[in-house]
Amino acid sequence: MRPESGALKVILLSVLAPVWVLADPMPSWQDGGTKSAIVSFVDDVTDPAGESFVPVSDRIAVFDNDGTLWSEQPFYFQALFAMEMVSRRSADDPKILRTDALKAAASGDLGALLEQGEHGLLEVVDVSHSDITVSDFQSQARDWLYSTNHPTRERPYSQMVYQPMLELLMYLRDRDFKTFIVSGGGADFIRAFAEDIYGIPPYQVIGSVGNHSYEIDNGEPVVRKESGVSFVDDKAGKPVGIMRQIGMRPIFVGGNSDGDFEMLEWATAGPGPRFGLLVHHTDAEREWAYDRDSPVGRLARGLDEGPDRGWMIVDMRRDWRRIYP
Amino acid sequence: MRPESGALKVILLSVLAPVWVLADPMPSWQDGGTKSAIVSFVDDVTDPAGESFVPVSDRIAVFDNDGTLWSEQPFYFQALFAMEMVSRRSADDPKILRTDALKAAASGDLGALLEQGEHGLLEVVDVSHSDITVSDFQSQARDWLYSTNHPTRERPYSQMVYQPMLELLMYLRDRDFKTFIVSGGGADFIRAFAEDIYGIPPYQVIGSVGNHSYEIDNGEPVVRKESGVSFVDDKAGKPVGIMRQIGMRPIFVGGNSDGDFEMLEWATAGPGPRFGLLVHHTDAEREWAYDRDSPVGRLARGLDEGPDRGWMIVDMRRDWRRIYP
Repeated sequence: MRPESGALKVILLSVLAPVWVLADPMPSWQDGGTKSAIVSFVDDVTDPAGESFVPVSDRIAVFDNDGTLWSEQPFYFQALFAMEMVSRRSADDPKILRTDALKAAASGDLGALLEQGEHGLLEVVDVSHSDITVSDFQSQARDWLYSTNHPTRERPYSQMVYQPMLELLMYLRDRDFKTFIVSGGGADFIRAFAEDIYGIPPYQVIGSVGNHSYEIDNGEPVVRKESGVSFVDDKAGKPVGIMRQIGMRPIFVGGNSDGDFEMLEWATAGPGPRFGLLVHHTDAEREWAYDRDSPVGRLARGLDEGPDRGWMIVDMRRDWRRIYP
Repeated sequence: MRPESGALKVILLSVLAPVWVLADPMPSWQDGGTKSAIVSFVDDVTDPAGESFVPVSDRIAVFDNDGTLWSEQPFYFQALFAMEMVSRRSADDPKILRTDALKAAASGDLGALLEQGEHGLLEVVDVSHSDITVSDFQSQARDWLYSTNHPTRERPYSQMVYQPMLELLMYLRDRDFKTFIVSGGGADFIRAFAEDIYGIPPYQVIGSVGNHSYEIDNGEPVVRKESGVSFVDDKAGKPVGIMRQIGMRPIFVGGNSDGDFEMLEWATAGPGPRFGLLVHHTDAEREWAYDRDSPVGRLARGLDEGPDRGWMIVDMRRDWRRIYP
């Protein structure tokens, strides 16, 4: 029995495709240390005859989102979205603007909001991310991301993703890695776009988690977002979040800030081959340049200790031919 | 360019395999209503030309564990494991037996433990499931499951799984479903064996969650289990747990008790084709018979309302040719 010729063509294409990809799996990466280290690592762990071979079931790769897969300036996009949602909600119900932080958010004044500190920011997220079904919330997030231009770049937030990282994600998946997001941002928020933009399905997104309720609303069962925070997926929370949702230690891990330090520390300390990567924002012209003193995406300990731990530091200006798609 | 003959053989086998499976995908199921309803549903949602076609990305199937994929009598196996661990820990440190529930657990007296109520049971789980790395805990669980015989059956707990459900899981995966566990039991516990026994990887296990910490222990970064409960994945917690971890509504859902009611209610209320299944324990001879009045796996509302909601009730005695592998 032979497969019919159409099926055979598909099969041949799927046999040939990896050869083509191998020609240059990541064209937006400059040839050089980081790119060749990635390719060399992936070749090693996927070579069934090699000492470093890792079975497919253990090929888990995790990536931070803000500042690692997409930009995070002037401030985390989720917070900018939250401000816009507070503004819209307050148009219907001005009484929700009960604090200076919420007033600043509604008027779109990021500086004034940040002056209110982390507590003010949490208020804004809480008010904008609760009392709504997960499904409706994600529709709002998607609409905003695809239709709103970044304040200083002439492109919607949905296109503020890093082309080199999209290529890395695809390259890893071509080599039978499972790619996960492990973000301090909200899981419900990231799931609104992760599959479409990164090719990462909802069940491979780990993030911070608010409270949820299940209820019957007019005969329709729904899961709703409620006020309050259930889990913060940042710093030491990242290895915990990974163990809670993935249940195993990744072998490839990418981040960009000290919020990712523990995740890299834990993942790269495991037995066998491990790859740790930190994106260093060094490109003031094409993206942004910031590290030790930045209120967003602060990177100090990673720069100090990363190289000795064998982590690759991506120099965005030198290592990336292109930033955005 | 042609694939070499070895590769072609693999390809041909993978083309032929589904044909063989279709011959009888689930030989341990009696021919009849439930089996044919499953096959008919799966055929419908996987037929690209049909009205009910569901793309691969939406083929999410979820299953309760205790009483749905394996037995749960005389009591949830995880609780029996917890009793044994309390007994072992108390041998080193008798001071931990500070309550009647813990003393009952250490002496292996399930009846006396249950007399202490849910609070006593939680104490036993808490003491046995904390102050240990996730990795060490899972080694303990695996050792126990594979080496300890069930009190009244002559087989280890690891073989108390339902052969018909193993076949259903494989059948669904052959048709490009992703299969998840959604259990009231602990996620860390179930992940110790789910891949080996059910073919379900750790990141497709959702369960109740204790507290965790991340720390450096003698230079080694570890995630530890700590005292306390973070999330209870039961009843209304099941749809919430699914939205938190899978992030989408399943189209196929199996359970066995009223703890699964909300999960079935929510999943089967979604748009498009849906399949809800409840395992009814009707086989006192080969397994157990219990439902409305059972302290374990109580099933009343599901029996009363399930059929009108279109859920299939599996009559274990009639529908299953074989119970265990």
